[in-house]
Amino acid sequence: MRILGIDPGSAATGYGVVERREGRLVHAAHGTVRPPGGASLASRLAHLYGTVGDVIAHHAPDCVVVEQVFVAASPRSALVLGQARGAILASLGEARVRVSELAARQVKKAVTGTGAADKKQMQLMVSRLLNLDSAPPTDAADALALALTLAQAGPLADLPIRGRRRSSRRRTTQFVLGRTR
Amino acid sequence: MRILGIDPGSAATGYGVVERREGRLVHAAHGTVRPPGGASLASRLAHLYGTVGDVIAHHAPDCVVVEQVFVAASPRSALVLGQARGAILASLGEARVRVSELAARQVKKAVTGTGAADKKQMQLMVSRLLNLDSAPPTDAADALALALTLAQAGPLADLPIRGRRRSSRRRTTQFVLGRTR
Repeated sequence: MRILGIDPGSAATGYGVVERREGRLVHAAHGTVRPPGGASLASRLAHLYGTVGDVIAHHAPDCVVVEQVFVAASPRSALVLGQARGAILASLGEARVRVSELAARQVKKAVTGTGAADKKQMQLMVSRLLNLDSAPPTDAADALALALTLAQAGPLADLPIRGRRRSSRRRTTQFVLGRTR
Repeated sequence: MRILGIDPGSAATGYGVVERREGRLVHAAHGTVRPPGGASLASRLAHLYGTVGDVIAHHAPDCVVVEQVFVAASPRSALVLGQARGAILASLGEARVRVSELAARQVKKAVTGTGAADKKQMQLMVSRLLNLDSAPPTDAADALALALTLAQAGPLADLPIRGRRRSSRRRTTQFVLGRTR
């Protein structure tokens, strides 16, 4: 089971691939896509579309999770972010891969224990959870965190409600140790 | 010289192709792209990306003009519109076609004489300018209007500034008759 996380941005889009191997979550890859600076908007978005397609072709994920947007910013920045998301989602749709969305707050809470975690905390926790030697760049760390959270959400969602409620605290701890059931 | 106009929307994207033949502007094609309703967002955006690619392959425009957005709406609707624009622009970038942007107000003024024209006025004027038997759907009419305006802007932009200012009124009239110099 391989999960690709994507944190879309107009200047930089982070991606991260996490695998579940024998109940453990293992780092497979991560990176940042930066469309060429001087190019036209259309060329930049085509670059983003193409690179996402390349990442999917190379890593063949079973599912993809993209950061959901609860827009708090201005309409202008929402439009710019929307354009990047549009190019990315069109590429995912073309690849016919399963796409989920998770809110940043939900991911922060799952990975660090608090929905208000900052970039640095996220980098630190992602590095620890995946046993990385150095912290990934912020966008890639966010993408890996998305993949980790979706990987964890899978088995939890299958549990009966009562059991889920009672032992949620314990499973969070296990997740912090890099394991899922 | 063939110009493709695109009016992006998440539910419906209009397109229209206008040709300049011996100084006259002639209707070549128009249509509306409606991604399948029940499909996922990614599939809908992939459909939009693919259809825009098909339109370009079929009509081989020399340049494309996309409606520019001066966002007045909410961040939520800006994000949704941005996603559609992202898929469309990525497809145009992939096709390596020249892309221009024009503001709706500018197009309305060029086609009807007033920047505050409503949808019906636009449909009527586009039909008259291009000698169409029936009015195109609103999105396609807006797309044809974009193409007409860009077609007109071309020769105007080449004129010396003094001449441009003095005779702009007259050229607008000529444009209304479906001609350009």
